Formats: sequence, C-alpha cells, structure tokens
Amino acid sequence: MDCGEGMQRQFLSMGLGLNRKTTIAITHLHGDHVIGILGLLQTMALSQRTLPVTIIGPSKLKDWLEFTFETIGIGLTFDLNFIYAKEGIVLNEKEYSIKCIRTVHSTESYGYLFAEKERPGRFYPEKALELGVPEGRKWSILQHGRPVFVRGKKILPSMVMGKKRAGRKIGYSGDTRPAERLVKFYTCSDVLIFDSTFSFKDRRRAEERMHSTSYEAALLAKRARVGMLILTHFSARYRSVLPLLKEARSIFPNTVAAKDGMVLEIPQKE
Amino acid sequence: MDCGEGMQRQFLSMGLGLNRKTTIAITHLHGDHVIGILGLLQTMALSQRTLPVTIIGPSKLKDWLEFTFETIGIGLTFDLNFIYAKEGIVLNEKEYSIKCIRTVHSTESYGYLFAEKERPGRFYPEKALELGVPEGRKWSILQHGRPVFVRGKKILPSMVMGKKRAGRKIGYSGDTRPAERLVKFYTCSDVLIFDSTFSFKDRRRAEERMHSTSYEAALLAKRARVGMLILTHFSARYRSVLPLLKEARSIFPNTVAAKDGMVLEIPQKE
Repeated sequence: MDCGEGMQRQFLSMGLGLNRKTTIAITHLHGDHVIGILGLLQTMALSQRTLPVTIIGPSKLKDWLEFTFETIGIGLTFDLNFIYAKEGIVLNEKEYSIKCIRTVHSTESYGYLFAEKERPGRFYPEKALELGVPEGRKWSILQHGRPVFVRGKKILPSMVMGKKRAGRKIGYSGDTRPAERLVKFYTCSDVLIFDSTFSFKDRRRAEERMHSTSYEAALLAKRARVGMLILTHFSARYRSVLPLLKEARSIFPNTVAAKDGMVLEIPQKE
Repeated sequence: MDCGEGMQRQFLSMGLGLNRKTTIAITHLHGDHVIGILGLLQTMALSQRTLPVTIIGPSKLKDWLEFTFETIGIGLTFDLNFIYAKEGIVLNEKEYSIKCIRTVHSTESYGYLFAEKERPGRFYPEKALELGVPEGRKWSILQHGRPVFVRGKKILPSMVMGKKRAGRKIGYSGDTRPAERLVKFYTCSDVLIFDSTFSFKDRRRAEERMHSTSYEAALLAKRARVGMLILTHFSARYRSVLPLLKEARSIFPNTVAAKDGMVLEIPQKE
C-alpha cells in the first residue's frame, strides 16, 4: 500500500521476494506515495520477474506509468494488471478481498480495506471419531466443507467443526481528513493505519492541508471500534512523534506510531 | 550529475542546501539516472525554494517532468530552466562552463565536462610596492585584470601578477561504451568519472549492454591523460568492486572506486 521514494530498499531488506504474488495499492498521486513504484518495478524487471503485478490506483496512475515506461524505457519482463480504484470491492481473490473508499484529500484519493475471507471453523477430531469417521481422507473432506458418508449415514461438516472464523481486516487511509463515512468503512478492522500528519496544536494546518491530526485519527479509531490504531505520515516538522502518540492514546489507548521496517503480528481470530 | 532514486537523502546528508544555486545535469533517461529528480524537486518545493533550478538533459526529460508534475501535482515554488543537452557548450557561467558530448549507449545519452574558467594569476604584493602602487583600491583593480596609473605611469596587471591559472575540469561519462571521441573530449581532465559497470571477464556483456569495463575505463583515462579516474556504476552482480579496481589500476594507477557520499578534494592549479 503506497510506494514512497526508496521503498524498493525496504522491500528487499524485509526479505520480500521480487518474483512473488504482488499487489500494489496506491491511494493517490502525490509524489511521496507513488514515486517509489518506478524503482520497484524496474528492480523487478532487472531480476527477470515473470509473474504479473497487480496495481490498484487512480486512473491517472496508469497514464503516468505508461508515459514513464515509454520515456524511461524500463523494459518490464512481466505484465501489469491495472485496476482502477473506485468505491467498493476492487479485487476479489480466494483468500482475501480489497475494498476502496474515496477519502477527503486535495486530490483524487482512496482508502483501502484489506479483508481476509472467513476461514473454516476449528475441526474436532474427538467428535469425528465419536460419529465413527476414521482418521484419513474423510477428515480432510469434512475440513474442506463437504459431507461424508459413514455406513450409509451422512455426516455434515457442521457436526464435527466449530463456527466459521472471521478473517482479519486491515484498513489503510492514505492522506485524508477524518470523515463519518470512513468510520463506517473501517468499522471493526483489526488494524487501522491512519493519516496522522499533524499534532493537535497544528489542527488548523491539518484542515488546510487536508490531513488528520493524531487526535482525530484516534477519535475515528474509537468510533469505528478497531482493534489497533497505527499512526503514520508524520510531518517532518516534528522531531519526535511522542507527543502525537500521547494525544492519540488519551482517546484510544491501543495506538502505536509507525516506524520504517516495523513488523506487527495480527493474531488470527478464533 | 544524474539523480538515482533516493538521491535527495544523500543531498541532504551531505549538507547541500535546498535553496542554493543548483544545476542538475542528466545523462540519459534510464530510471537509475533520473528517478531521484522527482523527490529532490518535491523536497525543494516543500522547503519553499525560491531560486530557479537549471536542468540539462535530453529533450524527453522535459516532457516527462512536465507530464509528471501535472499528474503528481508537485507544486513547484520555483522556476525550472530547462536546457536541452546537445554537443558543445550548453551552459556558460562566469566561473565555469558545462559541455556535452553524445555517448554510446542504448538510448540518447550525453557525457558532461564541467570546466572551471581560468583564474587570474597569483598577485605579487612586493612587485606592486616596488612599482609604487600603494596597498588598497589599486591592488584590487589590478587583481581584477585592469591597469592602474601611478604618478602618470601605467601599471599593467601582468607586471604584478603571475600567469593565468587553468581552471579544473571534471568529466562524467554516464553510461557508455568507450569511444575515440570520448578520449578527445575528456583530454586532460583533472578528474574523470567513468562507467565501469563490468569487470574484464564480463567484457562481452559490457558490449551487449553498451557499458564499459573498468579496464576499458582505465585505458581511456590513460589515453586522455586525465589526472584521476573514478570508477562508478558497478553492476550489482559484484559483491566486491576490488577486482574491478585492480584491473583498472594495472593500466591507470591513479584510480579509485566511487562510494556513496565519497568526498574528494581536487587541488586548484598553480
């Protein structure tokens, strides 16, 4: 999600492979969110990537990439699948979907919601054995959601498995003012990564520049009942982000400040 | 000269100011030579730069920058003076000139020669006093190359000053195969920064990709009688550049391998 300048360096240092399934979602066409895509794609081409790359973003992004590739002569070794960002589900894969919402910024801008699909419920071996289903292929069939027959008796997956488990949801706002519709869009996300460019004392500036304060991010996170808030996109004017973090935590305690290369584990749901 | 991705970081860490006289010379439009210009110009705009920036490069660079600024909405706070690269002197300032030559690469590509103008010769106070020129304004006039009159006698600058001193010359090849015309163009440069993408054993690859080996760079430096050779643009395939450096030094001993942030002092000529 978004590619600031130099992101290929981070990408490589995090051990993310250059020839793995990759979807790049760009919120909007400001330089600090998009310049890094050129170097990343070029490095992928230099490493002879063959898998296509999916790119989601405003339609102008496609124009700019095409013009740039033509001018700069980056000979891509793989296809680009371009998906125009628009409100609603823009990508629907077997294991997850990606949903867009227009955000409130100085240019056409989108927020993203990355949502894992529901996972099957927990399998209870003792229940299966009790019903006479022997360990082996029939267990696997049940775990995959289909019924089996044991001595003429139909055994349903629901008889040996718990309830379906919800997938995880990660929200990412890009640059935006807070808005009621964003509360709804990000409701019950496990993690919300939100624009926190300014501190409370610079709230006027946040309005002018169409960004959010950390305080506003926290209010939104609280109202959307998210699991965790990650503040990001801090203005270079602040030597330390600690005051911004404190302001947010006064409203929404489970808040952290994003850092380059930060890794967070988001527990799966039971 | 050239702007790879992330160059703004280097620019800032080297203490180069964002609002000082700046000329950017781009050799050609391959991503690793040009992507960084976007972030640099954007950061200059964010810091409210007011002085114009001069950019020298192939004409397509101007098209790409214009398209990019329009799409990405980098609101520049300063003017860009664009100079199309073409053979000959492209910029002539009071203290230096910049000269271009077409190089031999897979796209329209230029090498640059940054040449300081001649400086006035050394001023000899004892000679001036001997001729009766009192210390003060008249010394300054002589030092600036104009005659003065002392008791009706004309004193010429040449009577109190040494010979004019040659300016320094720095050559930069960008990406290129070696070529006879480059030998001539870079003759007697104090420093020549030259494409050394490959080692001797990969010389076939150097031909195919239209780059040079460190050995070829050294041969050219020797024939052009430059003061010092700086190898640069090493292929990522080499873990160490030491073998490339050794190959070059076997031909041209005064060779160094460029490093990020390297600072070299080029002594003024007497």
